[in-house]
Amino acid sequence: MEIGIVGLGLIGGCLGIDLSRRGHGVTGIARHEETCRQALERGIVQRAGSDFRLLGAAEVVFICTPIAQIGAVVEAIAPYLDPEAIVTDVGSVKAPVIAAARPHWPRFLGGHPMAGKAEAGLEAAEAHLFRQRPYVITPGPDTPAADLDILKSLVADLESRLYLCDPTDHDQAVAWISHLPVMVSSSLIHACLQEPEADRLRLAQALASSGFRDTSRVGGGPPELGLMMARYNREALLNTLAAYQRAIAQVSQLIQTEDWSALERHLQESQTGRLPFVAPRE
Amino acid sequence: MEIGIVGLGLIGGCLGIDLSRRGHGVTGIARHEETCRQALERGIVQRAGSDFRLLGAAEVVFICTPIAQIGAVVEAIAPYLDPEAIVTDVGSVKAPVIAAARPHWPRFLGGHPMAGKAEAGLEAAEAHLFRQRPYVITPGPDTPAADLDILKSLVADLESRLYLCDPTDHDQAVAWISHLPVMVSSSLIHACLQEPEADRLRLAQALASSGFRDTSRVGGGPPELGLMMARYNREALLNTLAAYQRAIAQVSQLIQTEDWSALERHLQESQTGRLPFVAPRE
Repeated sequence: MEIGIVGLGLIGGCLGIDLSRRGHGVTGIARHEETCRQALERGIVQRAGSDFRLLGAAEVVFICTPIAQIGAVVEAIAPYLDPEAIVTDVGSVKAPVIAAARPHWPRFLGGHPMAGKAEAGLEAAEAHLFRQRPYVITPGPDTPAADLDILKSLVADLESRLYLCDPTDHDQAVAWISHLPVMVSSSLIHACLQEPEADRLRLAQALASSGFRDTSRVGGGPPELGLMMARYNREALLNTLAAYQRAIAQVSQLIQTEDWSALERHLQESQTGRLPFVAPRE
Repeated sequence: MEIGIVGLGLIGGCLGIDLSRRGHGVTGIARHEETCRQALERGIVQRAGSDFRLLGAAEVVFICTPIAQIGAVVEAIAPYLDPEAIVTDVGSVKAPVIAAARPHWPRFLGGHPMAGKAEAGLEAAEAHLFRQRPYVITPGPDTPAADLDILKSLVADLESRLYLCDPTDHDQAVAWISHLPVMVSSSLIHACLQEPEADRLRLAQALASSGFRDTSRVGGGPPELGLMMARYNREALLNTLAAYQRAIAQVSQLIQTEDWSALERHLQESQTGRLPFVAPRE
């Protein structure tokens, strides 16, 4: 199959590596000549350049740019695409992306491969990043079954775990398990920095260990990621924040009123309730 | 030096292993004969039993029972101790423990070796658990310098990083970096379980990955640990929870009002602010 990839960063690069190895013909689009040269040299793509006309033969095009650009990129490449081409993306929010892209290309089909690395950019691209990781596809009511089948076959080539759902369900689900944790974790760091006594703050910093490290990890991540989540998944994230604020207020209340048996139940519920989120997947 | 250890669980066992290897004579006190037999067999202690008279020769006694029992244990062993003996503990909260123990033994000196494992009990005891980990000692105004020096030399034998501070400073510092994260993390799990649609909840569970796993880890831990933190460090923990509730309300507000530049600054501050808490220690 002929594949186009627009944006040769980490995710675009990883897609290129795996799909090339599976025997697909892969064309990469990147603004910088150096990126194209590197992608060709590493065999990540078979053709590369900045000219959208290179996409003319592509049967499936993956848009791998930042979320903010997806709509504009689809609009820009549309005149050069085969009318039968399927266009998909890899953004971590789906409803607003689909709303921005579909007017420019009716055969746009939202997707979200849920894998990543701490490093960014093509240099960090590697084989099998998506293996055994979730790959969500969010078909609309008008998505042709044949288009869905084609994208599903590519997801199978990546050896990902496929999930099909409504874009809104996707966005609410990732708000809970990915976007809310960033805000919860960032707020933990902010709260600690409120310690008014400098000596105590230094002591806290010196004594911090794996518990603090893990709980604060995603809150200490790249600001642009958290900002993107908040901007593009605002409503779903606000829902989860409201529920979270109720939960933390409840815990405070139980401690305030010294209702130890209720606090114990609460902690038992979180111990048990965590398990389905962290169970190993087959 | 002659050492007594009351309570042969994980921490008591690990202390016994390291101090025995350093050439100290170690006597263990445990209620169950089987625990004593195991401790003797593994060379963790040189003498063991349930009779407090075994502690008569001890120069330093470590109380390694749950926090709730420390005061009563000190009271119970006091009649059998050498009047010169130093008594210390390993509890994770200091001010209330000292208040409970010192009336029964004026030479009580609070301590907190900050190391642990997921597994509990003597079976899990191992060498070098405390190596390169913080060991906090909280002397009072009346603590004799000689007593402090003796405990410091034992901490040096464990190869721990020594910190000296006021009990109240210790309790506030661990509230920030250990006890608050448990409540923050537990509330994350509780919030997610509030998703009203069963299909979405299942999707969120299926899509949860390392971000959720890390942020929820300490909240999914043993309920008795979180309960102990809340009971014995209630006031300090409530301080941190109040600061935390302000921080999460501020984040919600920034997202609600779409103040993206302020949210970006907030996320930048948490990225930078986290570093001193997770910097590698020499």
